[in-house]
Amino acid sequence: MDLSSPREFIPELARASADFIAPFFGNPGTAVEFKSDDSPVTAADRGAEAVMRKMIAHRFPAHGIIGEEHGNDRPDAEWVWVLDPIDGTKSFITGVPLWTTLIGLLHHGEPVLGAIHQPTLGQLVIGDNETTTLNGRPVHTRATTALADATLVTSDHRNLARYQNGTAADQLIDACRLYRTWADGYGYLLLATGFVDICLDPIMNPWDIAALVPVVRGAGGTITDWSGQSPYPAESIAAAATPDLHRQTLAQLNR
Amino acid sequence: MDLSSPREFIPELARASADFIAPFFGNPGTAVEFKSDDSPVTAADRGAEAVMRKMIAHRFPAHGIIGEEHGNDRPDAEWVWVLDPIDGTKSFITGVPLWTTLIGLLHHGEPVLGAIHQPTLGQLVIGDNETTTLNGRPVHTRATTALADATLVTSDHRNLARYQNGTAADQLIDACRLYRTWADGYGYLLLATGFVDICLDPIMNPWDIAALVPVVRGAGGTITDWSGQSPYPAESIAAAATPDLHRQTLAQLNR
Repeated sequence: MDLSSPREFIPELARASADFIAPFFGNPGTAVEFKSDDSPVTAADRGAEAVMRKMIAHRFPAHGIIGEEHGNDRPDAEWVWVLDPIDGTKSFITGVPLWTTLIGLLHHGEPVLGAIHQPTLGQLVIGDNETTTLNGRPVHTRATTALADATLVTSDHRNLARYQNGTAADQLIDACRLYRTWADGYGYLLLATGFVDICLDPIMNPWDIAALVPVVRGAGGTITDWSGQSPYPAESIAAAATPDLHRQTLAQLNR
Repeated sequence: MDLSSPREFIPELARASADFIAPFFGNPGTAVEFKSDDSPVTAADRGAEAVMRKMIAHRFPAHGIIGEEHGNDRPDAEWVWVLDPIDGTKSFITGVPLWTTLIGLLHHGEPVLGAIHQPTLGQLVIGDNETTTLNGRPVHTRATTALADATLVTSDHRNLARYQNGTAADQLIDACRLYRTWADGYGYLLLATGFVDICLDPIMNPWDIAALVPVVRGAGGTITDWSGQSPYPAESIAAAATPDLHRQTLAQLNR
C-alpha cells in the first residue's frame, strides 16, 4: 500500500479548503443556517467541501468520496476520501479558531491516512497509524497514566448525559485535573501533540472520525468507541494518550 | 481626565509582555507549578508581569500597580495599573490560544481604560467605557435580547455550582442556544467584538476584572457582579451584550 501520492496531496487540499474558508471566519456577516439536528452550517462548509471534491476527482478519478455536506460518491471504492470541511462549526461561527478541516483516506474501508488542519493557527497534523507529524515534525501523545493528572476535552458535557451514561461521564470529568470544551477535531490535535490526555465524543459521524484514527494511533494514542470496539465507523469515540489511561477511561464510562 | 498618554502606552506594554511570553507558549517543556488554589502558573506569568511593571515604573513613576503575580505597589494612588499577564493559564499550559494579557487602568479606584490582548491571534481590544476598538477599529456587542438566541461562555460549568447557585446557572446554560468554556478574558473579547452574548464568572479577583469593565462598556455591553452591583472590585461577574439580556441573566441566576 503506497500512501506517498495521497500524502503529498493532503497539504494541497488543506490549503485550498483554507483559502476558500478564510473570508468567512471571524466575519460577523457570515450567514448561519441551522440544520435539522440544530448544528450550524455556512456557505464556507459547503463551498470548501466542493473545492476539495473537485480536486480529488481530478487527481484520483477512481477514488470514492464521503463528505459531511455533499454526501457519498462511490463509498465502496478501494480508496475513499472522507471530508469534513469545518469540524467544530460552533467554534467557527463564534470566531474561535478551534474548528478544523478533517481529511481522511480509507483503504478497503479502514482509515489509513488522516489530517487535521487549523489554518488560523497554521497547524497541519498528518498521521498514517504509524507516525504523526505537526507541520512535518513528529509528535507524540504524552505519557499520562493517572486520571488525576489528565486533561479531558469534550464538545459539551451535557452531550455526555444525553447520549450515554451521563453520571459516569460526570464522575470521569471530576476525576481529571482539567476539563474543557476544546473538542471536535481540535481536541484530537491537542491529544496527538501532547497537550491533552483524553478526548470524549458521545456522538460521531464517519466524517468526524476517519481522519482522527491514523492521527491518534500514529502519535501513540489509543482510540476506540465507548465500548472498546473499532473506532471506524463508530457512533462514539474515546481516545487517550496511553493504553493505561484509555483502559481507565472506558472502565469509568461503563461503570 | 486625559487618557491619551496611557492609551498610547498600552500597545507597547502588550507587545513587550507578548514577546516575553512567546517562547513559553505551545512548548511542552514549559514547567508548570500549581498554586495554593490549584491554579497553574509558569515563568511566563511572572516574567511578563515583571517586564510590564518595570515599563510602567519608568514611564509613570507616580502610578500605582496591582498585579496577579507580584502584588500591590501603592494601590491607593490616583492612577493604578492592574495587570494579569496570563489570564486563562489553563488554556496557556494546554497550548490553546484563548489566554489573554489583561491591562487595566484605575483613576481614583474606577476602571477607566482596559485592554485584552491575545498575541497568537493578533487581537488587541482596548476600551475606555465609551468606545472599544479591536486592532484600532470600533467594535460593538451584538443586539441579542433572547436567551434562546444567546451564546454563553464561562470557564467551567462546575465552578458555577461551587461558588453560586449552581442549579439556576445550569438552567441558564440550558436556556441558551450555545454554551462553551471559552471564558477568562478571551470570553469578554468575544463579547465586545460581537461573537458571544453572555459571560459568567462566579469567582473573580481585581486583576481579572479591571481591564474588562471599560472594554465591555465601551462596546455597548452591560457588566455587573451577580447581584447587579458595581463590577469593580467584585467577586463575581455577569456581562451581557444588551441591558435586556443582562436583566434576564441576573433574574435567572438569582431565582
